[in-house]
Amino acid sequence: MPRVSSDRLAARRQQILDGARSCFARYGYEGATVRRLEQTTGLSRGAIFHYFRDKESLFLALAEQDARRMADIVADQGLVQVMRELLAGDDGDDRSWLGTRLEVSRRLRTDPEFRQRWQAHSAALTAATRDRLERQLAAGALRADIPVPVLAQYLELVWEGLVSHLAMGLPAGDLAGVLDVVEQTVRRTSPPR
Amino acid sequence: MPRVSSDRLAARRQQILDGARSCFARYGYEGATVRRLEQTTGLSRGAIFHYFRDKESLFLALAEQDARRMADIVADQGLVQVMRELLAGDDGDDRSWLGTRLEVSRRLRTDPEFRQRWQAHSAALTAATRDRLERQLAAGALRADIPVPVLAQYLELVWEGLVSHLAMGLPAGDLAGVLDVVEQTVRRTSPPR
Repeated sequence: MPRVSSDRLAARRQQILDGARSCFARYGYEGATVRRLEQTTGLSRGAIFHYFRDKESLFLALAEQDARRMADIVADQGLVQVMRELLAGDDGDDRSWLGTRLEVSRRLRTDPEFRQRWQAHSAALTAATRDRLERQLAAGALRADIPVPVLAQYLELVWEGLVSHLAMGLPAGDLAGVLDVVEQTVRRTSPPR
Repeated sequence: MPRVSSDRLAARRQQILDGARSCFARYGYEGATVRRLEQTTGLSRGAIFHYFRDKESLFLALAEQDARRMADIVADQGLVQVMRELLAGDDGDDRSWLGTRLEVSRRLRTDPEFRQRWQAHSAALTAATRDRLERQLAAGALRADIPVPVLAQYLELVWEGLVSHLAMGLPAGDLAGVLDVVEQTVRRTSPPR
């Protein structure tokens, strides 16, 4: 039955993604060898690369999965909430995985095709952030003196800073207080003097 | 004469730092082999490691040099100005060098000694940022409802996001407008409603 077959294919694909995520988190992008990917996914290289063209495609599929999950939270609660959850979680694996995004920075900068694929995969997050802000604006909850695309880029820049900070294992300090400032900045109400 | 000798030592040390910076920018942290460091500095490995214990020490000395240079600008003009200059410059070498900071993220996270040394070297920047904000506060130019350490961490988080963004070669978009929002956020004057 095609339905069952399709479910099984999806489950197998997810098994590969989950194992690869652990592998990247543990060994880094370069350190995630095919042998290690076989170990963490529990599947042969033949099976893995039947679903994903190469390691790069596997990595980008994980980035896309992240972007979609985050986009769902952003749609309901905003990007600051995504940041609060990242900050509150003490999940070392999550932070290690985020670190791989930094490790590929050279590649992102020097390989236009890779960068283009990466940006296509993270487009869902940008779109969700803008949509959320547009809705907030319409509801009168957003400051109106700064264009929405600028506020969206502002939030994404803080997000990039938070990823970088946590992935490097730097002390959290009062980052919760910092996120309060960020949230207040995009809201309609001005800060007290 | 000891004075001349001391000048020559300092010049040689700087020659090594300049060459190493180009090397890291071009080949990345891992790719900056001893052979390549010899080529870009124009000195033998014996000479290089007479001044610096190892590659890690060389890298950290560059990070410290950056932190001191930035701290000087921060003292006079603030961290947002440092960000504006980074954004305005189209110096690919500078951005490539900044990218090496991301490449060592795994090491920073997993090697407490390395992280400690890195943080000690970047302490000058944090101190300068806080000092500047304290003076702004005393002059009535800073918002008073958020503690200075939180505002300092806010600015540093945005800085980390900007470094990450540019080092990955992502489009600048309206980051100048974003920095306006950031600057306005820490100032005393509240945004218009």
